[in-house]
Amino acid sequence: MSHNSFGHVFRVTTWGESHGPAIGAVVDGCPPGIALSEADIQPWLDRRRPGTSRFTTQRQEPDRVRILSGVYEGATTGTPISLMIDNVDQRSKDYAEVALAYRPGHADYAYDAKYGLRDPRGGGRSSARETACRVAAGAVARLVIPQVRVRGWVEAIGGDAIDPAAFDDAQIDANPFFCPDAAAAARWETLVDAARKAGSSLGAVIACEATGVPAGWGAPLYAKLDAELAGACMGINAVKGVEIGDGFAAATLSGERNADAMRPGEDGGAAFLSNHAGGIAGGIATGQPIRLRVAFKPTSSILTPVETITTTGEATTLTTKGRHDPCVGIRGVPVVEAMVALVLSDQMMLHRAQTSR
Amino acid sequence: MSHNSFGHVFRVTTWGESHGPAIGAVVDGCPPGIALSEADIQPWLDRRRPGTSRFTTQRQEPDRVRILSGVYEGATTGTPISLMIDNVDQRSKDYAEVALAYRPGHADYAYDAKYGLRDPRGGGRSSARETACRVAAGAVARLVIPQVRVRGWVEAIGGDAIDPAAFDDAQIDANPFFCPDAAAAARWETLVDAARKAGSSLGAVIACEATGVPAGWGAPLYAKLDAELAGACMGINAVKGVEIGDGFAAATLSGERNADAMRPGEDGGAAFLSNHAGGIAGGIATGQPIRLRVAFKPTSSILTPVETITTTGEATTLTTKGRHDPCVGIRGVPVVEAMVALVLSDQMMLHRAQTSR
Amino acid sequence: MSHNSFGHVFRVTTWGESHGPAIGAVVDGCPPGIALSEADIQPWLDRRRPGTSRFTTQRQEPDRVRILSGVYEGATTGTPISLMIDNVDQRSKDYAEVALAYRPGHADYAYDAKYGLRDPRGGGRSSARETACRVAAGAVARLVIPQVRVRGWVEAIGGDAIDPAAFDDAQIDANPFFCPDAAAAARWETLVDAARKAGSSLGAVIACEATGVPAGWGAPLYAKLDAELAGACMGINAVKGVEIGDGFAAATLSGERNADAMRPGEDGGAAFLSNHAGGIAGGIATGQPIRLRVAFKPTSSILTPVETITTTGEATTLTTKGRHDPCVGIRGVPVVEAMVALVLSDQMMLHRAQTSR
Amino acid sequence: MSHNSFGHVFRVTTWGESHGPAIGAVVDGCPPGIALSEADIQPWLDRRRPGTSRFTTQRQEPDRVRILSGVYEGATTGTPISLMIDNVDQRSKDYAEVALAYRPGHADYAYDAKYGLRDPRGGGRSSARETACRVAAGAVARLVIPQVRVRGWVEAIGGDAIDPAAFDDAQIDANPFFCPDAAAAARWETLVDAARKAGSSLGAVIACEATGVPAGWGAPLYAKLDAELAGACMGINAVKGVEIGDGFAAATLSGERNADAMRPGEDGGAAFLSNHAGGIAGGIATGQPIRLRVAFKPTSSILTPVETITTTGEATTLTTKGRHDPCVGIRGVPVVEAMVALVLSDQMMLHRAQTSR
Repeated sequence: MSHNSFGHVFRVTTWGESHGPAIGAVVDGCPPGIALSEADIQPWLDRRRPGTSRFTTQRQEPDRVRILSGVYEGATTGTPISLMIDNVDQRSKDYAEVALAYRPGHADYAYDAKYGLRDPRGGGRSSARETACRVAAGAVARLVIPQVRVRGWVEAIGGDAIDPAAFDDAQIDANPFFCPDAAAAARWETLVDAARKAGSSLGAVIACEATGVPAGWGAPLYAKLDAELAGACMGINAVKGVEIGDGFAAATLSGERNADAMRPGEDGGAAFLSNHAGGIAGGIATGQPIRLRVAFKPTSSILTPVETITTTGEATTLTTKGRHDPCVGIRGVPVVEAMVALVLSDQMMLHRAQTSR
Repeated sequence: MSHNSFGHVFRVTTWGESHGPAIGAVVDGCPPGIALSEADIQPWLDRRRPGTSRFTTQRQEPDRVRILSGVYEGATTGTPISLMIDNVDQRSKDYAEVALAYRPGHADYAYDAKYGLRDPRGGGRSSARETACRVAAGAVARLVIPQVRVRGWVEAIGGDAIDPAAFDDAQIDANPFFCPDAAAAARWETLVDAARKAGSSLGAVIACEATGVPAGWGAPLYAKLDAELAGACMGINAVKGVEIGDGFAAATLSGERNADAMRPGEDGGAAFLSNHAGGIAGGIATGQPIRLRVAFKPTSSILTPVETITTTGEATTLTTKGRHDPCVGIRGVPVVEAMVALVLSDQMMLHRAQTSR
Repeated sequence: MSHNSFGHVFRVTTWGESHGPAIGAVVDGCPPGIALSEADIQPWLDRRRPGTSRFTTQRQEPDRVRILSGVYEGATTGTPISLMIDNVDQRSKDYAEVALAYRPGHADYAYDAKYGLRDPRGGGRSSARETACRVAAGAVARLVIPQVRVRGWVEAIGGDAIDPAAFDDAQIDANPFFCPDAAAAARWETLVDAARKAGSSLGAVIACEATGVPAGWGAPLYAKLDAELAGACMGINAVKGVEIGDGFAAATLSGERNADAMRPGEDGGAAFLSNHAGGIAGGIATGQPIRLRVAFKPTSSILTPVETITTTGEATTLTTKGRHDPCVGIRGVPVVEAMVALVLSDQMMLHRAQTSR
Repeated sequence: MSHNSFGHVFRVTTWGESHGPAIGAVVDGCPPGIALSEADIQPWLDRRRPGTSRFTTQRQEPDRVRILSGVYEGATTGTPISLMIDNVDQRSKDYAEVALAYRPGHADYAYDAKYGLRDPRGGGRSSARETACRVAAGAVARLVIPQVRVRGWVEAIGGDAIDPAAFDDAQIDANPFFCPDAAAAARWETLVDAARKAGSSLGAVIACEATGVPAGWGAPLYAKLDAELAGACMGINAVKGVEIGDGFAAATLSGERNADAMRPGEDGGAAFLSNHAGGIAGGIATGQPIRLRVAFKPTSSILTPVETITTTGEATTLTTKGRHDPCVGIRGVPVVEAMVALVLSDQMMLHRAQTSR
């Protein structure tokens, strides 16, 4: 089984390195007859695009997506949709030092251990640049499940969390942090600036909610909806933790505190009194909003010197130059959203395959 | 793609319901020539077996495994290994009420929403009984990677955590809680007894470590070692969160605090000064111990009455009788270990396929 | 990817050896709510069952199937259906000689080359006994696509073919050869008897037709309906060739002779004037009957001595004792039908996943 | 599971339409450290390239391949290899008529039935142009198994077969028909010219042999080497039949005639006295040459008018203009070779995964 592909019947294969000529995604299994043009994808890429504020990497990439196949007269044909994004602003010379020593916290050492060689320019395949392809594919996935709204935001940076009571959806796109709490956004400006100037970096927690998912999507046992979401999000660069619903907090609750009681709802369904489960029970959607949280570690590329070894095994100290996000979690928001959209569109189709609903 | 199968080249398919005649697993892709008999599997099943202390369900299941295929004269032949465990102690009458109303926190409602019908006896397919099959298959997986030791324990119950300084590996199998801290084990006895007598239940956090995993196992991008582990563990019944290495704590650190510095090690490899990453970088093992944590919610089946609805949509109140674990997380230890062993054996074989190492 | 599993979303995993305690199949992904009991499966197994005439092996196997999971109150639940068939009439002592030398035409040598060991009893996993599991799973598949009729027959034995003009569907189940031509059946009685008495064996050609398949099932490009059918049938023991529609004869035609002209049909569809294509164009069903032919080589187990080598590489001569089909192709009819039913049910579900039709 | 992907661990995904801007393939799972540049791929594409003689389509496509990822400093890195070929010579206006009526023998009708719409320009995704991607990917696959030689040729055109006794490997690349028999090539010149001038077309039989495949590659049961080869070849445009070894002729033989007797060979292996089996037993390579034959139907696009219907269901008569191969089977030779190379490289890696050999 290929490891650069994602999904079962709505299936995405990505390719490309940070400093190669281009990166791309092939979206296979898309239903036919869906209106699709570059204009449906570009806005999502623009949300993830680097260089839009001083809080992200200064690499200037327009991230223009082109559709090379699978669309005829403005509609998907059911055949593979090839999406390509040219790399424009490579500065491979920044990486001469990296070719000779392993950056701590990066994949350099592990890639060499696995493959015996690696493309050191900008991290090669392990660069977060690849996530642009996920976002592009996720934009197509959204069109497959128009009844679903996938919405992410930053919940904490460097341990400083939003006030849930101050949550304002309209704020999320109004500041450079995807922060739903204006006061927190103001604090983070100072926080991230300080880290950036100190040559340091910060971790972040991203939250994501999918509303409109009907009860029944998902499947026992090894592709449970929560298992798929966890795998999808843990596979994003820099992610170290995933929670569904109450997550680790659920481990501290008693059974009666954690139970999501039900009352008769509309259309014969259930009206839940709480959502500790994050909208998933037994791996299947309950019809409540799907809720998850994702932990991003701080960017590994920092100006602070760290002890490491060279590719020939000698001791050295490395300062990672180049242009990096002081908090890679921020731009993780559109990526998490994309992965959730990809999982959900795939699960919708699998559910339809088995149940014809 | 089948959803009751797990793995890519070392692949396990499980079947069976809680109150059917038997449950089983088919292990496909196992390397040939490995010494294997029931005696290699049974001890792991015994660790997970119910009814061994008052802290687990009182259902009496001997969980005797039989090997029906794939082994000849004591060695694996490379063909599918069929493992079967008879169900002995079903009391389906306990579940008459459950057939008519949805247990909050359970998969009942979601299964009906998905399939339009369900087997209500003991939770049917959604029962944690299925995890016996995972443990049996995991026992085979361990033999495929004898260089690796997979070891789990309970780190917290109901929010009461062990003292890391008191960690004693020898304690783990010396108490009914898989607890490495004798003092914590003593406290949990009181805690779990109280929950059990109150008709309540408790959540738990399980930790797991895999040592001996060579640098290089795992693979970018959508089957990253951490993504596979997260999906595998999140697919276990009652799990709501997974962390690799520092997990959510990493999101509160600065880049220099989170970096795992390296010095020259033995055999030309790296000697790491810390293991915030949990032994995985870029989805590939670094050679350090793999470390992860898994959050189990409290058992949903409780004696405390909870508001719910009937299958015909009317309001009711339900008390879940039957025999249940007061803390399902405890028996989650051998299950988490099994899933980790399954992921690692599969990744070893995939690594070998691509690199011949 | 597992190699003892078949199908994409309607997925079957089989296990078991010829002389082990049992063989079985796990059917995963079956739609819920389908009425199913052993009585729906047994008749198809009985058609394939050995020992029913002197023209098949004399091994006496009742081939009683048991459903161990996935069915509740007479209906499929959408969870894995475990099917098990006990092996009753093993005579492993017949195979002492086979353990020490390789039977020409058999898989013995190749298995040893691959795995370094093998189960020699009755051919182990490579025995045609495994096809009972395919037939059992195929019986479930038929219920998933009740609008489709899959019908196979023997078209030739040992080069002696039926007269197409004499085709009589009612004859197929009226003789021990699944022969639609009564005159041919009478000739084959003499032919097969002669081969049997001579300790020889014969090859056969099986034809199969599926009617009721709607235009649209199937999919470009690497799971084309014809590609899936070809792979499915070539994977049956002893099969050496597969043709769709006119097959190799199409290679001798001119374009205008091979074209299936169309006229306006009912319901806005096409009425085809011929079916050279065997009901498939571009890998997708056209709505015409699916037609294919499958070549079975003669049974390799013969009483005639053949030169071979021992497992230690020394020259010897082997006579394969034991109980064998003088023409294994005959019992191939229900197996080919089963594989066609499995492919079609899987493709129906994949088509539904992508197009919601 | 995606249907525009092929293979299990060496996995190829293709995309693109006949008259879109480009076509391409993503090769995933390739072992690292293999020397690779466009110069390794281009010669194979040149063999398949249209417009090189009057016996193929006159469409002028340079078929220049570009490597966009997965190669660094001349060697594969183990990450996805993106291959792209620009479409240069589209004349979409040729296809105005085709958009309104279904070409008999083509996929037009089936695509509309499946998807409800299609890209009519040059056949869109169903065009044989896609096979350029298979050839490009196959060129990479060859480098993964340098010990194997995959060699194809045309064995018959329009029913006129070569004389096996006249087989001369050196002839294959010396005439425009990949014909190993000089006398047959001379006859075919007349034959194909006549068909071309008559606005007709001819079918062909392609043979292919893979030498150097070690005993042991392949795997029971549903990915048998012969099953994989049959599926791979039947999925090529215009293919209607596949035979392994003696194929349909084996069905006319007696068991003793079909048996491949063995004598002690070199290195402890077997020396076979014949190769009726085509190098595969029980789905596993025996170490003999792998041999298969593939039947191509005559090109469906012909100038002879054929009855058909319009997309709105009315009767019409269609003459397929445009530029077409008078015998599409000829250019099938490099495509069959590519599919065989893809199967074998994938099976080598799967074998290595399970057995470490």
